[in-house]
Amino acid sequence: MAEPNIDGKLAEEFAVPAHVEEVKERMTEFARCHASEGRRVVVITSGGTKVPLESRTVRFLDNFSSGRRGASSAEYFIEAGYAVIFLHRHRSLYPYTRMFSTINMLDALQLRRDSGEEVVVNQEVLPNISKVLKRYQEVKERRLLLPIEFSALSEYLHLLKATAQALSTIGSKAMFYLAAAVSDFYIPASEMPEHKIQSSNGPLQLSLNMVPKILSPLVKDWAPQAFVISFKLETDKSILLDKAKKALDTYRHQAVVANVLDTRRGYVVVVTRDTQVELSLTDEDEKRDVEIEERIVSNLTSAHQRFIDQQKE
Amino acid sequence: MAEPNIDGKLAEEFAVPAHVEEVKERMTEFARCHASEGRRVVVITSGGTKVPLESRTVRFLDNFSSGRRGASSAEYFIEAGYAVIFLHRHRSLYPYTRMFSTINMLDALQLRRDSGEEVVVNQEVLPNISKVLKRYQEVKERRLLLPIEFSALSEYLHLLKATAQALSTIGSKAMFYLAAAVSDFYIPASEMPEHKIQSSNGPLQLSLNMVPKILSPLVKDWAPQAFVISFKLETDKSILLDKAKKALDTYRHQAVVANVLDTRRGYVVVVTRDTQVELSLTDEDEKRDVEIEERIVSNLTSAHQRFIDQQKE
Repeated sequence: MAEPNIDGKLAEEFAVPAHVEEVKERMTEFARCHASEGRRVVVITSGGTKVPLESRTVRFLDNFSSGRRGASSAEYFIEAGYAVIFLHRHRSLYPYTRMFSTINMLDALQLRRDSGEEVVVNQEVLPNISKVLKRYQEVKERRLLLPIEFSALSEYLHLLKATAQALSTIGSKAMFYLAAAVSDFYIPASEMPEHKIQSSNGPLQLSLNMVPKILSPLVKDWAPQAFVISFKLETDKSILLDKAKKALDTYRHQAVVANVLDTRRGYVVVVTRDTQVELSLTDEDEKRDVEIEERIVSNLTSAHQRFIDQQKE
Repeated sequence: MAEPNIDGKLAEEFAVPAHVEEVKERMTEFARCHASEGRRVVVITSGGTKVPLESRTVRFLDNFSSGRRGASSAEYFIEAGYAVIFLHRHRSLYPYTRMFSTINMLDALQLRRDSGEEVVVNQEVLPNISKVLKRYQEVKERRLLLPIEFSALSEYLHLLKATAQALSTIGSKAMFYLAAAVSDFYIPASEMPEHKIQSSNGPLQLSLNMVPKILSPLVKDWAPQAFVISFKLETDKSILLDKAKKALDTYRHQAVVANVLDTRRGYVVVVTRDTQVELSLTDEDEKRDVEIEERIVSNLTSAHQRFIDQQKE
């Protein structure tokens, strides 16, 4: 069920980032420009949100998420012809750059022998670098990727609202791919201590409120014509599909990508009101470094096309 | 006061990382080797610790820390002739590499015009790269930096204990520079739910226990001859020095580096039992990109030398 006055609650209990209007303008322009060239636009949210426990924050609650799924999906959406707004957690994995995330960059660089000061990439360490760099530069030049950063939950909520409003102008050509791991709980500003919680006061009791379900106004009010995908991650497989269906009933959006923590890189179920499609990687796929995100994006871009066609009828 | 049976508590309530014995052997060898060449060894802990709320972890409590102070200090300790064990949070800032942390590496690379596949660093984007790379490679070749990673609090605690035991063999030549932002609170394994906490159950009440004060056995039992520095970060300046002095009284170690969240990059106080030395950066220093860690390390390496000399007397 939609909560009443979610806009009011957002404004009251979650600090509005100073740059939200400026970001909204950039997104509106980005969407307008690409839609006018016949391109669809996907908003990918990626990474975890930070929930401060103190207003001068030393401690915070976080969600496990490297941002791998979002970063990888962004690349496949671009391959599929989309322009991408990448709303991601500061320092989480980033499209194209993500391939260096497991190495120390200095281990991949070397001084050229014939010229003491020139520094080159050792392509034995990074065999795909020239291909990836070319693709990255092309994407940058064609302005196909608009990166927007958040850290705190409050930034995420306000920026997502601004994104939805910015994309409402392109109707069903907009897709929301909500892969971020958003906290379900937070401490309202009014109940937050200003200073660092002292351990000398003994064991800590925390009481957290529930974060308003932003999917509800997003679907109903902010971007009612858009194609909206949410993600459901559970650790307990037995409750997963029920929770996915329940989310579709509640929020009336188009699909849920359901996955289990331990197997999330090789198996997901795309759940819609009428269908349930299992996507998985075979051993052969994994040997060839195929990523499940390629399959997810392929499934969803087709569904998005059908959705757009239906709207036209 | 030292808690009784802290070793027992560590073993019971905090999962022992599988590789701890292997890491301990590497550290013992590292310390032995450098000490035999007349080098002092500093253990730098750096970054925040993760405290899981579920045993199949989706959510966790974290501490604000980029790892900047630890990474930067490691470089200055190496300049001062130390060998460094860098016990740091996975993906936190790293010595030498830290200078790229604010840029996307692909923005600093370019394809060579005369050779389509060679990738070089654009030194307009990274003006210091060749100098930093040379220094990094030299440090690597001379094996002056031993990196050890942790993520969870339990890993940090067990690895720090192993480090202290490994370094007990070199007596007063060992320094502990405990800059990591370690959680004061945790949920014992026995009280942790296995699966992801469900938001449908309503608001969340968390009850966290206090983390055993590991500084106590470190100073008393594990590395009783070492030179030990702890850090105290507060947001409230008025309680800072009292807390630093109280820590020295309680744990009987050599110094506390006291700092306030907002001003930590430009001002610290090094507190010992008899002295209180303020270190700060002038506007002129900041213009020249002087880092406060250079001053901190300079202060502490001198103090460490005096400490070693006193032990000899």
